[in-house]
Amino acid sequence: MDMQATLDEIAEAVGPQIGSGVVAEYIPRLAAVNPDQFGMSVVMNDGSSYGVGDFEVPFSIQSISKVFTLVLALQASGDAIWDRVGREPSGAAFNSLAQLEFKRGIPRNPFMNAGALVVTDHLLGVSGTDANPLLDLLRTESGNPEIRPDALVSTSEAGHSDRNRSIAYLLSSFGNLRNEVGAVLDRYFDQCAISMSCAELASAGAFLSRGGVRADGTELISPLQAKRVNAVMLTAGFYDAAAEFAYRVGLPGKSGVGGGILAIVPGKCSICVWAPGLDSAGNSLVGMAALDEFTSRTGWSVF
Amino acid sequence: MDMQATLDEIAEAVGPQIGSGVVAEYIPRLAAVNPDQFGMSVVMNDGSSYGVGDFEVPFSIQSISKVFTLVLALQASGDAIWDRVGREPSGAAFNSLAQLEFKRGIPRNPFMNAGALVVTDHLLGVSGTDANPLLDLLRTESGNPEIRPDALVSTSEAGHSDRNRSIAYLLSSFGNLRNEVGAVLDRYFDQCAISMSCAELASAGAFLSRGGVRADGTELISPLQAKRVNAVMLTAGFYDAAAEFAYRVGLPGKSGVGGGILAIVPGKCSICVWAPGLDSAGNSLVGMAALDEFTSRTGWSVF
Amino acid sequence: MDMQATLDEIAEAVGPQIGSGVVAEYIPRLAAVNPDQFGMSVVMNDGSSYGVGDFEVPFSIQSISKVFTLVLALQASGDAIWDRVGREPSGAAFNSLAQLEFKRGIPRNPFMNAGALVVTDHLLGVSGTDANPLLDLLRTESGNPEIRPDALVSTSEAGHSDRNRSIAYLLSSFGNLRNEVGAVLDRYFDQCAISMSCAELASAGAFLSRGGVRADGTELISPLQAKRVNAVMLTAGFYDAAAEFAYRVGLPGKSGVGGGILAIVPGKCSICVWAPGLDSAGNSLVGMAALDEFTSRTGWSVF
Amino acid sequence: MDMQATLDEIAEAVGPQIGSGVVAEYIPRLAAVNPDQFGMSVVMNDGSSYGVGDFEVPFSIQSISKVFTLVLALQASGDAIWDRVGREPSGAAFNSLAQLEFKRGIPRNPFMNAGALVVTDHLLGVSGTDANPLLDLLRTESGNPEIRPDALVSTSEAGHSDRNRSIAYLLSSFGNLRNEVGAVLDRYFDQCAISMSCAELASAGAFLSRGGVRADGTELISPLQAKRVNAVMLTAGFYDAAAEFAYRVGLPGKSGVGGGILAIVPGKCSICVWAPGLDSAGNSLVGMAALDEFTSRTGWSVF
Repeated sequence: MDMQATLDEIAEAVGPQIGSGVVAEYIPRLAAVNPDQFGMSVVMNDGSSYGVGDFEVPFSIQSISKVFTLVLALQASGDAIWDRVGREPSGAAFNSLAQLEFKRGIPRNPFMNAGALVVTDHLLGVSGTDANPLLDLLRTESGNPEIRPDALVSTSEAGHSDRNRSIAYLLSSFGNLRNEVGAVLDRYFDQCAISMSCAELASAGAFLSRGGVRADGTELISPLQAKRVNAVMLTAGFYDAAAEFAYRVGLPGKSGVGGGILAIVPGKCSICVWAPGLDSAGNSLVGMAALDEFTSRTGWSVF
Repeated sequence: MDMQATLDEIAEAVGPQIGSGVVAEYIPRLAAVNPDQFGMSVVMNDGSSYGVGDFEVPFSIQSISKVFTLVLALQASGDAIWDRVGREPSGAAFNSLAQLEFKRGIPRNPFMNAGALVVTDHLLGVSGTDANPLLDLLRTESGNPEIRPDALVSTSEAGHSDRNRSIAYLLSSFGNLRNEVGAVLDRYFDQCAISMSCAELASAGAFLSRGGVRADGTELISPLQAKRVNAVMLTAGFYDAAAEFAYRVGLPGKSGVGGGILAIVPGKCSICVWAPGLDSAGNSLVGMAALDEFTSRTGWSVF
Repeated sequence: MDMQATLDEIAEAVGPQIGSGVVAEYIPRLAAVNPDQFGMSVVMNDGSSYGVGDFEVPFSIQSISKVFTLVLALQASGDAIWDRVGREPSGAAFNSLAQLEFKRGIPRNPFMNAGALVVTDHLLGVSGTDANPLLDLLRTESGNPEIRPDALVSTSEAGHSDRNRSIAYLLSSFGNLRNEVGAVLDRYFDQCAISMSCAELASAGAFLSRGGVRADGTELISPLQAKRVNAVMLTAGFYDAAAEFAYRVGLPGKSGVGGGILAIVPGKCSICVWAPGLDSAGNSLVGMAALDEFTSRTGWSVF
Repeated sequence: MDMQATLDEIAEAVGPQIGSGVVAEYIPRLAAVNPDQFGMSVVMNDGSSYGVGDFEVPFSIQSISKVFTLVLALQASGDAIWDRVGREPSGAAFNSLAQLEFKRGIPRNPFMNAGALVVTDHLLGVSGTDANPLLDLLRTESGNPEIRPDALVSTSEAGHSDRNRSIAYLLSSFGNLRNEVGAVLDRYFDQCAISMSCAELASAGAFLSRGGVRADGTELISPLQAKRVNAVMLTAGFYDAAAEFAYRVGLPGKSGVGGGILAIVPGKCSICVWAPGLDSAGNSLVGMAALDEFTSRTGWSVF
């Protein structure tokens, strides 16, 4: 298969749709992003990589960060994280409080905001506020030591965070935050505000298609752990559209409201696609279409 | 009827139960209250008043304050407050977030914590942070100008307030708080922390048995408004035990986790009873029993 | 007070609204009722009675029957019925299955369809299928031995009963029906299909304003039981608009989708009003307005 | 890989657990099954097949039938079935009515009882009551023309069916059943009561590992449809433990309360395992353990 040709064809196929969807508006800084952008990168397990469109333009990774924080929590503490967060699909919007209340402070899965706050709190407890293992990981795996949060996005999130504050205080009321609420939120906003390009994200996530093996050949997490992170992505990676994505595309993946999607073909490759406009479920509209094209053209899906 | 004799009989009847129930533990300062206390006061519409037991001992009025803030909001703005809060029974615990989320930030009624926060925010908007119309009202109607919040209780509430903070930020995320979240919470904690005795509370609430008429004969709210506040108390005054109280006792009333209950016999009298131990629904166990005795002995109920 | 003059004034006041609202459509026989009808009756505790408009025209009593079956169950078995049905407001539509499932087959209150089915089952168990204590009671108290179900309405209900069948089988799955499901449903449809006029219903329900005393001076239920039935009517008599009715009108009452409402002024009188058009909550639109007028003009409410 | 040796090792590994779990009790006929049985079959895409233990003993396929009825509905009508049933995980027990009510009669997915009733109704509408395409398919693909429902199981289910009747009438009340309720239920009970062995079920389901291709080489459904059925099995095949199964085992599968599980390794093989004892989520306890062993030993999972 000529992967570069495939990406070129996908870009041409989705071209007429570029600019579709609605850019996330609840974070002012994101609302100002030019919607007419589209990029896609593929990093093969053999190390070769491909890109099309705006694949080297940085964007706000937002909830895609949740995959990496989960991986770091598993690396640091193994299955202990599952005492504090479940791994069931939510069947509800990403920021639902009702479920959290019903479950007495145990979030349904690590990819809902509540679950990611718990994972963030867990990592803070393991590494302390001075260390930032997420930035370390992303920089090393992507090969770009300059990766960092966009301070304006982070400030913008903090200033429009009533819902996340409500969730964090509810977690705290159930005893499922161990650090100070404000410190957890600040770290969480910083993680979501990290800027990376498609090329960088596809590289950074490639260990999930390589059974947990980092770019330098060492093991970040075990093959079983990598397989299981992929399983959680498939069942819970797209808010309440996870089953729909499994049905249409059939790949583990994780989306962010910045318009990015990281998807994994286990044993084959890591993919990142980006287009800012979102569909009604909060996932990149053109990104979903591009992944649909990708699985149709390559025949690669897990099913 | 010899009301003093009736109160003495009630005190004797519930005597063996005094000390029963569980003192509210989530607010440390309240948890330290001596549970073996019981007081009851009745203020008749003719101005006569009666008391038994610890009826002159101040206690933390807690959620009973919500009746008075609702009255002040109705006085200030009429039915406008109902655009921001409903008046249906909750069918759920007093601090449920699930309902609030489902209703998109409109609390079910003004006696749930969420509803009281909205009413507090409304009053702050009307009067500003410098004025305190609640203290003014309680002082004037009770005749005690020294009534004030217990600073230790207020601080204690603020320090154990994750759940209320979660509710307040959720309200704010739906645009149903207009003042700064922290300022609304501080005022709310201060209101709940006010200390009053049974005698003072029965006097302060007597306008509700007099069709809205204050102690000095002027009208605080209209007879129709007073009737309607009584209706809201009957259907929503006891968290999720409101219908149970209507069934057993049959009077409009409002309880607080400090162990106090204010009850109204429209056209006849205002009653306040206090005993710190709570039942499983969060209402004063001995207080409920005393009111049960009261309606049995007097035959006074609204039904 | 000149009660006849009051009724005449009410009829004049609501006159322009007569015909408003939507006649119940899910039962074909009811959908064919002429909407331009209005009647109202009052039976005073002194035995005098008054009427205006179509107060002698029979209509389908529907859910108003639930008050009388509850009374008969209390008469037969005392508080035992409360082991099988709660007495909390539903906070949901009258035919919700979700709550019933959550509560494992214990209906929230005896006035929801599920609760009335349990009460009907209980009465069938007490009296057997040959006896019909409901008809006996209604005939004796109203003085009309010809009262009976309208066979066409009953058949019509049975033919459009998927929802009620679903509820009944769910109750049965939780073990909360003791008779055969079909037999319970048939009896339930027959009870709802009973035809009575405002004059007859006001007479039949008057024992609730007389502390449980029948027309012949004997006690049907105790004063305490009568008071408690009134309490359940106030908190649960109007589907999810019960608190709204308490707020606006302030009387215990029970509505039916045939457009009738029975309301009680404890110690004073029994009222029945009828107009076929319903509001969005399923209560008679003009009937609610007439009761609103009634309490405004008489000043009679429980609050 | 020596598949027979692998199966022998698995049987030895789970041996100590055989007999664990609780046999389904709500269907008397199933409750009488000897719990100390275990069988497992694998049918490779090259046509070879393997078995261990009681792999030729027939058992009640129960909900595994739902995979085949979904396939037949897709074959007959394509995506039209998705207008009547969703494909989201339920996040709730397999027989929940609450969700069904909230979604106004559209079941969450075709593997919940409600969804399977709708699919059954759809097939009845397509084929009529005389034809039985499900039996035709199972007989042809398994090579056993004697496959049929166990009449005693079917009768037993019909006699303990209050919950399913409740669901069916609720579907009907929302207009989402087109045939007579009793006829749909009878057909549904018959489908669940079909008896097959592990060997037969693995053969019958093998088209899902072959991209929709039947044993005779013809196409039953398209490769895309087969992939999508696999996706629905992965996200919804194990009641509210679907994500857990994806996490632990990582294969599309469908369980039944008879203790059987059908699992698919796309492109490789079809697997059926059976052991009557169930875990708390209603899935075969030993069957789950055997599949866990299978993926560990073969390294075959979709992730």
